[in-house]
Amino acid sequence: MLAVMKRLFIASRGNPEHLAQLFRAELPDYEVLTEQPKAGDPKVPFIVVGRPLPGVIRAVPGIKLVLSLNAGIEHLLASGEVPEELPIVRLVDEGLAIGMAEWVLAQALSWHRNLFLYAEQQQRGEWTPQVEKLANKRRVTVLGAGALGRPVAEHFVRFGFDTRVWARSRHDIPGATTFAGMDQLLEAARGADILVNLLPLTAETRDIVNANVISVLADGAFFINGARGGHVVDADLIAALDSGKLSGAALDVFRIEPLPADDPLWKHPKIRLSPHVAAPTHQHMAVKEMAANIRRFESGEPVLHIVDRHKGY
Amino acid sequence: MLAVMKRLFIASRGNPEHLAQLFRAELPDYEVLTEQPKAGDPKVPFIVVGRPLPGVIRAVPGIKLVLSLNAGIEHLLASGEVPEELPIVRLVDEGLAIGMAEWVLAQALSWHRNLFLYAEQQQRGEWTPQVEKLANKRRVTVLGAGALGRPVAEHFVRFGFDTRVWARSRHDIPGATTFAGMDQLLEAARGADILVNLLPLTAETRDIVNANVISVLADGAFFINGARGGHVVDADLIAALDSGKLSGAALDVFRIEPLPADDPLWKHPKIRLSPHVAAPTHQHMAVKEMAANIRRFESGEPVLHIVDRHKGY
Repeated sequence: MLAVMKRLFIASRGNPEHLAQLFRAELPDYEVLTEQPKAGDPKVPFIVVGRPLPGVIRAVPGIKLVLSLNAGIEHLLASGEVPEELPIVRLVDEGLAIGMAEWVLAQALSWHRNLFLYAEQQQRGEWTPQVEKLANKRRVTVLGAGALGRPVAEHFVRFGFDTRVWARSRHDIPGATTFAGMDQLLEAARGADILVNLLPLTAETRDIVNANVISVLADGAFFINGARGGHVVDADLIAALDSGKLSGAALDVFRIEPLPADDPLWKHPKIRLSPHVAAPTHQHMAVKEMAANIRRFESGEPVLHIVDRHKGY
Repeated sequence: MLAVMKRLFIASRGNPEHLAQLFRAELPDYEVLTEQPKAGDPKVPFIVVGRPLPGVIRAVPGIKLVLSLNAGIEHLLASGEVPEELPIVRLVDEGLAIGMAEWVLAQALSWHRNLFLYAEQQQRGEWTPQVEKLANKRRVTVLGAGALGRPVAEHFVRFGFDTRVWARSRHDIPGATTFAGMDQLLEAARGADILVNLLPLTAETRDIVNANVISVLADGAFFINGARGGHVVDADLIAALDSGKLSGAALDVFRIEPLPADDPLWKHPKIRLSPHVAAPTHQHMAVKEMAANIRRFESGEPVLHIVDRHKGY
């Protein structure tokens, strides 16, 4: 076993002192720094980082492992700030998955039970019960079968929806029909009443929700995006909402965030926006997960959730 | 075993022919009538009824069992149309419970994840992420532990909410804290962030959601009513919304339905209305359940879901 220096640098631009306190509670034998270590300082094997400022990571002496504060690491990879040989751990905390499931199910159940429609009727003082379908008459397709997609799919199965899951590789999710690989994407989406995107953003998945995919959904389908704005061709989405092919969309993520004031998504009557809050990081849960990974590294055990740079997540 | 005449009268004022077709499929050996049988006709032991017109039930020769088309039977009891000695079966179909759980969870998750607030922000073009709480930091109190209350409570437990259930008598619901009897009502409701009403409407539960109960909830709590309008003192509800004690309410049921055009509930900005659709009867599921009860009666087995007139449900 290598002797690892018990030092950790938190490079968050948000509230590093709050994070530092949480880490000190989990790793009481560690020195937790919030100021940039310099060449010549004692070695600092661990860095916790969100979106790094230029040069910050490379300036840390003896750096061994980069722990991302975000589940999506495409910005970190694209920044070029992480040397090739340095492993990156992406954030997979249970809090993220729980939060995402709540947000997706809130949107999906609200649409399924016509609550958006009833809100419009209430504005007009109109009392018109709709024909309420059973969940087993609704097909849901979840794109993504990882730490976020799987628990969401399991909730849909539990509520009785006809649930399909598509991912890059084959997964087994009890009660759901699963599909794998680009060849099966259209088959997975065909006839879906609700399409949920929870994919990682990679070269392969960029623009994946486009006119082509939307065209095979059921007429009047609902689209839910909890992943990244870059997955969606906004012009295709808006065209489908305007034509009635889609009856609505719930979007938590956008190509530019905060969403610019003049973006047409703000005012579209069929779009429900939220400001990137679907899967908030609950810091104390995230810190527990990262601390456990640091302990694994320390004791020579395999570190979990290492990013595969070739796949991009 | 008594020989029972295999005849059934459907007194629904809605679409009796559609119901009759469903019953004929489930009970192919039965004669299913949709026209009022008269004295002197062969005996008709079973009647399926929603809100009976005066004299309809008493005019059926040889009537033995009344099957309600509704889960709530307070109108049927209050009508005085069912002779004292005649057993009433209330509708308990799986579809009702499934539908209610979807509607309640859609409302509860939407409030929990601030979606009503984000909808208001979207109107103003405002991007302000709220602090998103974990479900285990939210207390939910469900009033009612029967065919509707229990599955709803189970969903809340599964999503990780701090779940409490109150009912007339003691129930055991894994993962939830349970309370029984009027003495424990305020204790059950104390500190609740979400209050869900799924009680039957009886002399005891009428007006149960009043200023007294609301006063013990957490500040800014959310109220969800999927049961009956008669449970709620509307003036107390509106006062609590106006003072900020409650941050919102989702109401599916009202003292008068359809809700009269001049009712202040229509326009209150913190109220989300739906037109009595939370637990729609899915006729084919309801008919299966009623047919099974008719078969039990036929073979001398105990009939399920007999109304206790003393309790009122």
